[in-house]
Amino acid sequence: MNHIKAFGAKANDADLEELTIQRRELLPTDVHIEIDYCGVCHSDIHQVRNDWGNSKYPVVPGHEIIGHVVDLGSEVKNFKKGQVVGVGCMVDSCQECHSCEEGLEQYCENGMTATYNGKDKHLGGHTFGGYSENIIVDEKFVLSIPETLDIKAVPPLLCAGITTFSPLNQWKVQKGDKVGVVGLGGLGHMGIKFAQAMGAHVVMITTSPSKAEDAKRLGADEVLISKEAEQMKKHANSFDFILNTVPVGHDVNPYLNLLKRDKTMCLVGAIEPLKGVNGGGLIVKRKRLAGSLIGSIAETQEMLDFCSQHNIVSDVEMIDIQNINTAYSRVINSDVKYRFVIDMQSLKN
Amino acid sequence: MNHIKAFGAKANDADLEELTIQRRELLPTDVHIEIDYCGVCHSDIHQVRNDWGNSKYPVVPGHEIIGHVVDLGSEVKNFKKGQVVGVGCMVDSCQECHSCEEGLEQYCENGMTATYNGKDKHLGGHTFGGYSENIIVDEKFVLSIPETLDIKAVPPLLCAGITTFSPLNQWKVQKGDKVGVVGLGGLGHMGIKFAQAMGAHVVMITTSPSKAEDAKRLGADEVLISKEAEQMKKHANSFDFILNTVPVGHDVNPYLNLLKRDKTMCLVGAIEPLKGVNGGGLIVKRKRLAGSLIGSIAETQEMLDFCSQHNIVSDVEMIDIQNINTAYSRVINSDVKYRFVIDMQSLKN
Repeated sequence: MNHIKAFGAKANDADLEELTIQRRELLPTDVHIEIDYCGVCHSDIHQVRNDWGNSKYPVVPGHEIIGHVVDLGSEVKNFKKGQVVGVGCMVDSCQECHSCEEGLEQYCENGMTATYNGKDKHLGGHTFGGYSENIIVDEKFVLSIPETLDIKAVPPLLCAGITTFSPLNQWKVQKGDKVGVVGLGGLGHMGIKFAQAMGAHVVMITTSPSKAEDAKRLGADEVLISKEAEQMKKHANSFDFILNTVPVGHDVNPYLNLLKRDKTMCLVGAIEPLKGVNGGGLIVKRKRLAGSLIGSIAETQEMLDFCSQHNIVSDVEMIDIQNINTAYSRVINSDVKYRFVIDMQSLKN
Repeated sequence: MNHIKAFGAKANDADLEELTIQRRELLPTDVHIEIDYCGVCHSDIHQVRNDWGNSKYPVVPGHEIIGHVVDLGSEVKNFKKGQVVGVGCMVDSCQECHSCEEGLEQYCENGMTATYNGKDKHLGGHTFGGYSENIIVDEKFVLSIPETLDIKAVPPLLCAGITTFSPLNQWKVQKGDKVGVVGLGGLGHMGIKFAQAMGAHVVMITTSPSKAEDAKRLGADEVLISKEAEQMKKHANSFDFILNTVPVGHDVNPYLNLLKRDKTMCLVGAIEPLKGVNGGGLIVKRKRLAGSLIGSIAETQEMLDFCSQHNIVSDVEMIDIQNINTAYSRVINSDVKYRFVIDMQSLKN
């Protein structure tokens, strides 16, 4: 058993502070990763604050992990010491159900093991995330990071990236499609980059005119201010796909109204109840409202390779772990462009 | 100009009574149909009562029309005198937009012309439906009725039938699929018959245990009582497709929970706002909520041919037009199995 240094919250409403956690001994198919960088996801804050009512303390967050391999189990085939690797939102799944057999571990029928606050099959208790010195993960859940990418800016690809890439990929967004991205935050900024790289005509849809300039810098062809009735009317029934990254329950009807017949809006953020979805809005033009959860390990690797090909990384602001509580406040105030990444070297200070 | 006898409501809250309406002179591509039978759709009642706020009086309802050809315009190619034909929910569309060009007149970008309470392009004012002696319709909107079918029981196929056939057809329901039909009324009873004929394992989903026996008679393999939490849990994540025929806004979350990953529930009745749709319920297994509106003329003909092949008609109760107000009360109380059909011969009394 390894005792290591980490940062986490010991109770609901507590600030994050230094603490000690345990990692398991290396198993034959395990990869031992020393963590170099870890992204800060909004869901880290939800878990630390027990917003979803299922947190287990201490919570050590972090599921956008980039590091390098320091040790390998005897049976590991696909990684070597020193290699730069990543770990995203999952560290295990049952590997037996039909979803796992189809290579869709994120939809594991028996529940995938979340990187933190998941059920730890090896040590009992719950899993601890990437705000820590190292992590030990079965090689099936380890990603290869293309060497061409600036690795400081890669961590958010493992959650914000795959969460937006997967629906664009599954719904086969292609050259010439008119694609809307609702909401410009950690997820939205990646959605714009991917849709643009896939050849779509990208429309950033936002309530905030102040975000227009940045949206265009990120690759949006147009910006649609959703509070402007005339603009919304002009774009009615014209979108081939809409990626909705709004992280809370909201009124989706104005966005559904933007879709062409037979087209889909996919939710990736709002897990809460949506305000009265208008049945008629779906019926009258055979529209579809869907959801999507992160992506599989194979699709995450596909996304990383796509990023390498198109030179895509996240827009990040680097912080030391000692500033994590301030960073959380800034995330809540949408005061970050567009993702904080912790330089985990700072944990050694 | 022809002045003919009809039954309709002269104002909101008024009973239906005998009145006189006009039909246009026969145009070269028109079919003149003497009406033999007309189905009573729940939306007839909504329109008569102005529930949707867009009714124009007098309202002469009726969009499930079966009759025989008595005259033909000089350019009509596909029909002959004496032939049994049908007219459903539409009598015209722009024929120019991309939806019309794709053969999807029900989604006409300029608005299809509803059989009643639509905008009459020829006479001005609004269109009058099938509770009348005859109707004159462009041949593009006339259906051929297979001779093998009992024509008294055919009228509801033209609305309740196509409304349920189309989504089952579009989402490619096939042998072995587990298909749920929510709600057992005019639409639901047709949904069961079609899904069964397509080879699906059909589960009737209802709040009323009293409907179980009849559902099985109609072709359901199982009946799931949606108020029984244990039963609902047993069927969670197991359906390939759900056809939701509930005609009013309701809580769709328990039904979405029944779908397998990546599968769809399609609304065909509820045009009103739905109670807080749970975003998480869509996200966690990449599920889809969709809607569908009647069907195209081509697909309606396809359905009629499917009915002939599988010997499918509606379960109907025949009435005289003089009993229409009583029939409306019984529809509202769900006291009909499963559709009233008016014998239009009674209008001559």
